[in-house]
Amino acid sequence: MISVKGYGATSKHSEIAALSFERQAIGDFDVLIDILYCGVCHSDIHTARSEWGAANYPVIPGHEIVGKVSQIGAKVSKFKVGDLAGVGVFVDSCRTCDCCKKGLEQYCEEGMVPTYNGMYRNSTLKTYGGYSSIYIIDEKYALHIPPTDQLAAIAPLLCAGITTYSPLRFADVGNGHQVAVLGLGGLGHMAVKFAASFGAEVTMLSTSASKEADAKRLGAAHFALSTDPAQMKALKGKFDFILNTVAATHDMNKMLDLLKIDGKMLLVGIPPEDCKIAAAKLISKRRSIIGSMIGGIAETQEMLDYCAEHHIVSDIEIIDIKDINTAYERIIKSDVKYRFVIDMKTL
Amino acid sequence: MISVKGYGATSKHSEIAALSFERQAIGDFDVLIDILYCGVCHSDIHTARSEWGAANYPVIPGHEIVGKVSQIGAKVSKFKVGDLAGVGVFVDSCRTCDCCKKGLEQYCEEGMVPTYNGMYRNSTLKTYGGYSSIYIIDEKYALHIPPTDQLAAIAPLLCAGITTYSPLRFADVGNGHQVAVLGLGGLGHMAVKFAASFGAEVTMLSTSASKEADAKRLGAAHFALSTDPAQMKALKGKFDFILNTVAATHDMNKMLDLLKIDGKMLLVGIPPEDCKIAAAKLISKRRSIIGSMIGGIAETQEMLDYCAEHHIVSDIEIIDIKDINTAYERIIKSDVKYRFVIDMKTL
Repeated sequence: MISVKGYGATSKHSEIAALSFERQAIGDFDVLIDILYCGVCHSDIHTARSEWGAANYPVIPGHEIVGKVSQIGAKVSKFKVGDLAGVGVFVDSCRTCDCCKKGLEQYCEEGMVPTYNGMYRNSTLKTYGGYSSIYIIDEKYALHIPPTDQLAAIAPLLCAGITTYSPLRFADVGNGHQVAVLGLGGLGHMAVKFAASFGAEVTMLSTSASKEADAKRLGAAHFALSTDPAQMKALKGKFDFILNTVAATHDMNKMLDLLKIDGKMLLVGIPPEDCKIAAAKLISKRRSIIGSMIGGIAETQEMLDYCAEHHIVSDIEIIDIKDINTAYERIIKSDVKYRFVIDMKTL
Repeated sequence: MISVKGYGATSKHSEIAALSFERQAIGDFDVLIDILYCGVCHSDIHTARSEWGAANYPVIPGHEIVGKVSQIGAKVSKFKVGDLAGVGVFVDSCRTCDCCKKGLEQYCEEGMVPTYNGMYRNSTLKTYGGYSSIYIIDEKYALHIPPTDQLAAIAPLLCAGITTYSPLRFADVGNGHQVAVLGLGGLGHMAVKFAASFGAEVTMLSTSASKEADAKRLGAAHFALSTDPAQMKALKGKFDFILNTVAATHDMNKMLDLLKIDGKMLLVGIPPEDCKIAAAKLISKRRSIIGSMIGGIAETQEMLDYCAEHHIVSDIEIIDIKDINTAYERIIKSDVKYRFVIDMKTL
């Protein structure tokens, strides 16, 4: 085992603080990544605070990890020392089920192994995330990061990026489509960039008028205030797709009205309560709701390569690790444009 | 105008009783159908009793109409006197919107004209349904009925048939698919027949164990009691599609668990309250829910022709028109196998 420095939570009520923990030593197929930056996802907060079920403490959060490979196992073939590398939301899966074989490891029938607060397969060892100095991962689950001078802004692509890229690709969003993005946060700002980049005409739907200028800067052609009945009425039946990133309880029927016939709501946010859906809203126009969760390893690599080619990165605020608790409070208030990224040099 | 004999409701509290009303005279493009049989749909009850909003009385229900053409307008080309003909859920639409041009008249942007309790386009005349001696309809919205000695059993295809045929075709259900049908009533029994006929392996999900033998007779390979947690657990992740015909409030999350990755719930029933959907049930397996409403004219014709070729009809109980009120009470108690059809000679 290797002793590692990190930041994490020791109980649901504790602040995120410095602590040491152990990672398993590097195996034949593993790469050891010196972590340079780690994005801060709302999931980190939910998990650290046991808001999604009791966590297994200590929790070292962080699943938007980028860094540089500093060691490789004897049988590693995809990476060499010095390569940039990334780690996303999961670090292993069964590798044999239909989903794994199709490159849909995130839907693995035995369950993916999450990057933190998980257990390695057939092992009593826990996974610890990216608020730390190093990560050790099987090369099959690590991503290549194309050469860049914006490495910090790439980190959030590993979760916020792929979570929005994948459903837009799955739904074949492109030229000529009218796409609404609901919610301008970490996911929403990436959704606007991707949908616009794929050729769609994007409308940002937000509860906050102050976000209009930013939405347009990010690539939205239009902005509408979802709290204004007149604006909502004017958009009825307009959209081919709504990418719904909102994780708070909200009126989904009002949004379904905005879809045209055969329109699809792509759902990536998980509100805390059941969504209330009027069956008639779906039936009367053959509309559908499609869920989507992050993306597989191959598609995540495709997304990273696409972003490199199209100069797409996340909009970020870089923070010191000592400011992580303040960052959590600001995330809860939606006071971040649009993702915090920890500079891991400050560990 | 033509005076017509029928059966209908004069208020939300009235029984269905004999009455006379007027239909517009036959126009150049109209056919006059002598009604031989008319199916009894649960919608008839909801409308007659103003349970779906205030009805415009008198209401003459009935939108599963079959009969024989006895007169044609001067410019009719699709039908000749003596032809069998059918009328379904709607009798006109705008004919110019994208939906109408695509043969999806049921989703017409200006709204389809329902077969009863509707208003003709650009007119102050009401539509009256099939509990009557004749129907007059533009030939474009009438259906050809292939020669048959089971005419009464074809009537329900015009609503229950097309409502289940269309979503199964839209979802491309066929060989190798695992399909569950939820609810064994008028819609459910047709869904089983169609899904099995398309090559799928069908499981009937019902709250009533007494329906097992019937489900298997209709074409289901398997039967499961949706109220038995052990049976539901055993089916987790089994189905490619669930055709959900239930119009009562029910636990949809329990059903979503039965879908495999990329599984689709095809929704044709409209429960009285909003459906409660856990976003995670969709997101965790990229599942979707797709609404569907009846079908367009061309697809309804395709379905009728398919049924003729594959010897598919509805299971029916033929009734006298004087027994319609008793039939309504039995429908409400789900005490019908599986559709009442009125023999219109008894009018």
